[in-house]
Amino acid sequence: MGQIFSDRMLKTDSSFIAEVMRLTEATDIISFAGGLPNPISFPVEEFKESMQRVLTNYGEKVFQYSGTQGYLPLRQWIADRYKKRFGMDVTAENILITTGSQQGLDLMGKVLVNKGDNVAVESPCYLAAIQTFSLYEPNFLPVSLEEDGLNLEELEEALNHDNVKLLYTVPNFQNPTGLTYSKEKREAIYDILRKTNTILIEDDPYGELRYEGESLPYIAGGKSDNSVLFGSFSKTLSPGMRIGYLCTTNDELMGHLIAAKQASDLHTNVISQYAIYDYLVNNDYEKHISQITELYKTQCNAMIASMEKHLPSHVTFTKPEGGMFLWAVSSVDVFKYAVQNKVAFVPGDPFYTNVKGASTLRLNYTNSDPETIDEGIRRLAEVLK
Amino acid sequence: MGQIFSDRMLKTDSSFIAEVMRLTEATDIISFAGGLPNPISFPVEEFKESMQRVLTNYGEKVFQYSGTQGYLPLRQWIADRYKKRFGMDVTAENILITTGSQQGLDLMGKVLVNKGDNVAVESPCYLAAIQTFSLYEPNFLPVSLEEDGLNLEELEEALNHDNVKLLYTVPNFQNPTGLTYSKEKREAIYDILRKTNTILIEDDPYGELRYEGESLPYIAGGKSDNSVLFGSFSKTLSPGMRIGYLCTTNDELMGHLIAAKQASDLHTNVISQYAIYDYLVNNDYEKHISQITELYKTQCNAMIASMEKHLPSHVTFTKPEGGMFLWAVSSVDVFKYAVQNKVAFVPGDPFYTNVKGASTLRLNYTNSDPETIDEGIRRLAEVLK
Repeated sequence: MGQIFSDRMLKTDSSFIAEVMRLTEATDIISFAGGLPNPISFPVEEFKESMQRVLTNYGEKVFQYSGTQGYLPLRQWIADRYKKRFGMDVTAENILITTGSQQGLDLMGKVLVNKGDNVAVESPCYLAAIQTFSLYEPNFLPVSLEEDGLNLEELEEALNHDNVKLLYTVPNFQNPTGLTYSKEKREAIYDILRKTNTILIEDDPYGELRYEGESLPYIAGGKSDNSVLFGSFSKTLSPGMRIGYLCTTNDELMGHLIAAKQASDLHTNVISQYAIYDYLVNNDYEKHISQITELYKTQCNAMIASMEKHLPSHVTFTKPEGGMFLWAVSSVDVFKYAVQNKVAFVPGDPFYTNVKGASTLRLNYTNSDPETIDEGIRRLAEVLK
Repeated sequence: MGQIFSDRMLKTDSSFIAEVMRLTEATDIISFAGGLPNPISFPVEEFKESMQRVLTNYGEKVFQYSGTQGYLPLRQWIADRYKKRFGMDVTAENILITTGSQQGLDLMGKVLVNKGDNVAVESPCYLAAIQTFSLYEPNFLPVSLEEDGLNLEELEEALNHDNVKLLYTVPNFQNPTGLTYSKEKREAIYDILRKTNTILIEDDPYGELRYEGESLPYIAGGKSDNSVLFGSFSKTLSPGMRIGYLCTTNDELMGHLIAAKQASDLHTNVISQYAIYDYLVNNDYEKHISQITELYKTQCNAMIASMEKHLPSHVTFTKPEGGMFLWAVSSVDVFKYAVQNKVAFVPGDPFYTNVKGASTLRLNYTNSDPETIDEGIRRLAEVLK
């Protein structure tokens, strides 16, 4: 009997991270492993009102099939916000609503990547991006991520390969490191990219969650047709609704993305698109975001303070200006002992396409209160000593 | 400058059907082209209550990230219904909630099909299945669909090829033909399939919408690990919510499907899964379905009566026992003239992987009242004469 499964599935191993998540589920474990928003940040009451308004005002319309590109007023709102925040010249036609940003990754792989094509990624890289792109059987070109963004020499070398279809980045509060690209690095990367045909993805789920420093312009977003921005309401309103979006001024690319989206799930959940739009126009979204960032700033600072207090000096870690994660580098691999000591994180290896035994730790601070954070870091310190 | 788009996208042409849909959008056209449920069948008031109950009782929980396989009580409900309707021995672990049945097609292609693998399909075949599978670059093996199901000789011949990963069928009220497989054909197909490793998809979005005759057992659903059933709430509750499901007792296949689903969109919209479950346990779903089937029976009979009254004898057509479509075969290709005469349908060619100039018509009757149906068929008769 022959092998019935596709090569792409057999090459993709998701068992490691599933095992990590399974180990961290025990109720007596303090887990910094997940990437969950703090549930107290969800605007439940406001959405109850929005859902009622939508069902009352639009009734049958939101139950019916709908256009693949997404609800026009919501796309218009997103385009206007890019205009307002970054002065970008984009319209509703440049926006595609996706079933979460995750779907954007799948669509980009589907539309661009032939087996064996090159895909340049940050090293370390957002885990789910590696997994999703892997299903299109690319050759990954890892580019080291430094304190202020990608290593430029490595980037130039990577982009000198043939058929580098994609460069995938998370320029703000990167997952897993929490690092943010500097203004200078953004400009330098743009200059390097301009000489190529490579499409740059700037995945920006955390960009609104900045609690220190100033918002920076995108690397190529709004400036180049070889650019795709990803955005999401998952970190500010609700991940459960799976409403993300992408933005590109490349009409040919957008046409293919819409065709791929249609083949993938026809269109995104309609009621949730309407409810999010209703929420946005009837509530103070800026105030809501500033409440979340205040909350996360407190929790991030609590984690940093606890780490400085408890951890031995051989452990170094990033100090994020926003987002949900910080990243620690240790000289020893302690995941197994940490779980035995009832504290969990995501060990760094799966964030690399080419490294094993990295002895790194991704720590989430958004889903625990400061007291829990301190106790968790204390437990972690016991096994890192 | 090299070609940046993937081979799979460049090979997939969705422009024909987009053009058909664009032509049928004019407000003065009577369109039998779409596949929309009648909006009067959507339980809007009941869902308003369900949404409120869900948001009140579960609050933050339904806003958060959730499991990839889907909401357990909903999966349990679906498994119980398979047990009740067909005596199938399946559990919640055999069910995966998908972002509409459409996503099921994409996941099956992703998990099973290497470039060049064989995929056997009904001829004619559901259009979106052809488009979605095409992105995995298979070789299609069309098997003629007869009045009572697949042609058995052609099926045996097709399945004798190497690497026939999939056989895709819509056994009840098929799209586009409205035909239903007989009990005898189902058994004969099962006997042929048992000698192979081919996975059978039985896509069953319309199965509940039977208004004549008796419900028939699935071909292989519940009997074989080489079987996947697709189901959906799109035709009975709401397509806009994009809540479908698949059912398989093949644990290895299910594991790969869950991994592929995670890479595609992490999980399905949570609030809609909860709201549908709440609706199902607090309302009389059977009564709701029987109201829809009564409505569609009336509309289907109206279309058949109008066709018998108006159409010339060279036009033959199917008489469905349920579902949403009937299929007419003409000796001439009249689509262009029909649109000029303000009536639209989907011409048959895109439903075939290997036929051009089929002179066939897919006619939807669920989204028009009997008077509109009669006027539309009258207009159609004018160009078919």
